Amino acid sequence: MSLKINQIQQWLNENELDVAYFSDFHSISYLTGFESDPIERILALVIFAQDDPIMFTPALEVEAVKSAGWQFPIYGYQDHENGWQLLANHIRESTKHLTRWAIESEQLTLARADLIKTALPEIKFNGDLTNIIQQMRLHKSADEIQKMHLAGDDADLAFEAGFAALQTGVTELSVAASLEFETKKRGIPGMSFETLVQFGSHAAEPHGATGLNQLTYGDMVLFDLGTIHDGYVSDATRTVTFGKVSEHQKDIYNIVLEAQLAAQSQVMPGMTANQLDEIARDIITKAGYGQYFVHRLGHGLGSSVHEFPQIMGGNDLVLEPGMAFSIEPGIYIPGDMGVRIEDSIVLTETGADSFTHLSKELRIID
Amino acid sequence: MSLKINQIQQWLNENELDVAYFSDFHSISYLTGFESDPIERILALVIFAQDDPIMFTPALEVEAVKSAGWQFPIYGYQDHENGWQLLANHIRESTKHLTRWAIESEQLTLARADLIKTALPEIKFNGDLTNIIQQMRLHKSADEIQKMHLAGDDADLAFEAGFAALQTGVTELSVAASLEFETKKRGIPGMSFETLVQFGSHAAEPHGATGLNQLTYGDMVLFDLGTIHDGYVSDATRTVTFGKVSEHQKDIYNIVLEAQLAAQSQVMPGMTANQLDEIARDIITKAGYGQYFVHRLGHGLGSSVHEFPQIMGGNDLVLEPGMAFSIEPGIYIPGDMGVRIEDSIVLTETGADSFTHLSKELRIID
Repeated sequence: MSLKINQIQQWLNENELDVAYFSDFHSISYLTGFESDPIERILALVIFAQDDPIMFTPALEVEAVKSAGWQFPIYGYQDHENGWQLLANHIRESTKHLTRWAIESEQLTLARADLIKTALPEIKFNGDLTNIIQQMRLHKSADEIQKMHLAGDDADLAFEAGFAALQTGVTELSVAASLEFETKKRGIPGMSFETLVQFGSHAAEPHGATGLNQLTYGDMVLFDLGTIHDGYVSDATRTVTFGKVSEHQKDIYNIVLEAQLAAQSQVMPGMTANQLDEIARDIITKAGYGQYFVHRLGHGLGSSVHEFPQIMGGNDLVLEPGMAFSIEPGIYIPGDMGVRIEDSIVLTETGADSFTHLSKELRIID
Repeated sequence: MSLKINQIQQWLNENELDVAYFSDFHSISYLTGFESDPIERILALVIFAQDDPIMFTPALEVEAVKSAGWQFPIYGYQDHENGWQLLANHIRESTKHLTRWAIESEQLTLARADLIKTALPEIKFNGDLTNIIQQMRLHKSADEIQKMHLAGDDADLAFEAGFAALQTGVTELSVAASLEFETKKRGIPGMSFETLVQFGSHAAEPHGATGLNQLTYGDMVLFDLGTIHDGYVSDATRTVTFGKVSEHQKDIYNIVLEAQLAAQSQVMPGMTANQLDEIARDIITKAGYGQYFVHRLGHGLGSSVHEFPQIMGGNDLVLEPGMAFSIEPGIYIPGDMGVRIEDSIVLTETGADSFTHLSKELRIID
């Protein structure tokens, strides 16, 4: 049996629970290698303390689950069938011990919790899988780290494709399209999120969308992108200038760069997430731009783009080797300009090991 | 006040409820025009029976909410702040009547329900917004239908870009990349889901992913794609042959085509979703391929790609004018071939009005 599933079974036994009910497709992907967002359909990985686990999926996914290497029972259901009742029946057939459940409280909705309890009235939700699965995902294995390094290499190439597409008058969308086109042509199956390209003052909206703004000589251009390698993601940001650079742009850029480099070079096991955030934030605040750094320093990543740890004020989590996260300070001056610089790294005994390697010195593209 | 928000207030009053708590970003987009997936951050639209509504978002989204036309209070929170406590405070300041809540049970998780109740211990979840918002979204306005027609026009163009990219030896991913590149170059901001391109026997996996398979002369090629226009989506599928076509391919294709055309030409107000599914399913079953049509006939769409109504066996929902959904029968023979043909339509008094218009006759690309 897979090591990870064993670990969950052990946790169930330690906590005197019978059933671990996983419904978050990210968790299921992490535990089984099968990755698919079921949207509104039912997808469940049910791990029993005493018996072999089962998977339950839409009928059209059954073959894909087997291809992903799943060696235990897998049950499919068709759209016209009562999936919850079928799932309940399969669970009853799979174990005699099914009263005490652990569920994913941050994923399971009130409506689905009701449906499960209606189909299996004898069960009780006595435990929460959120912490154990977060703990497991928080510490990356050598295999996971290797995949993230390969994803990082692809991200480095994607930036270069984006830089090459810059010319006066192009739109943000067409630059993103060129970048993704060149990336996919190399066989990289997909981006880990919608590529963000922002010109000039548009980069002052840290969550604005790639749009129809046209590139002007002297604009700064922010690229935030990620790729997927074998289920593991990269996430990085570079801000460059097009054609020429003003003193004001250079000043703001260098403050962000100083903050990014400080955090990335000083991060060490034993430090808290909060302390790491402060290293970067203090530099930006002392330079007078603290009010314009409106988001946390970073977020975990691995089989998804947003996972634990959150690198932010108030988070006392102690950073440990094997944790992977982004370091991405920014300054966003509304109506004027925005700069963000980001590498994602895995923490080792001796500090940060970055997945991306493209230079962070201010680059003028012409 | 916006008509839609008024409608929710009226519903609250009719049901003797105080607060409608919306947390699904699709609902919020539908009700306010502001569209953003907050991932793990908090996004809430809180509508009060007696007082003006408020929105609560991550700080970095506040400007975007205002730009989307929101004219009521909007409160932002920063990552290091206790968002749930802040939200509770703003709710208390906004109304004196806050005990009886309606929530979105199909979106709200157990963990978040707990956090809200901890911050506001006096509240009770007495109502569910799922039905009212589904009912509202189910019946499209003239304005929504117009946007969906424009999205359909873009999808028609995207198919042509995909067909043009077919040549011996290309991969599925590079065809998808070309198609999306050409689409984005025209200024279409994004696809409504990851474009699916499948060659030959790979099309027998209806939820398989676009990959590195190479195109061979005589392969069938399945394209399933959608675009977004002003927040509204298209979704359509075409299957074509590359170079030549065998009798077997032609036979299977024509069965699917007959099923698709029958459903699309016969759909009428007053019919149930189940009856519409049967029209297509009966044709495929009588031809001997019923076991290979492994999914429902269709799904609703609008501001998202999967919403109500579900066109499937067992659904007795009566179809009414203004409902928009896909009609997408398929035959998937494992290891051999797959065909799916799909238009999305809005139902009118006189039948289906399709958003896409590209011919569905079997096309040979060479």
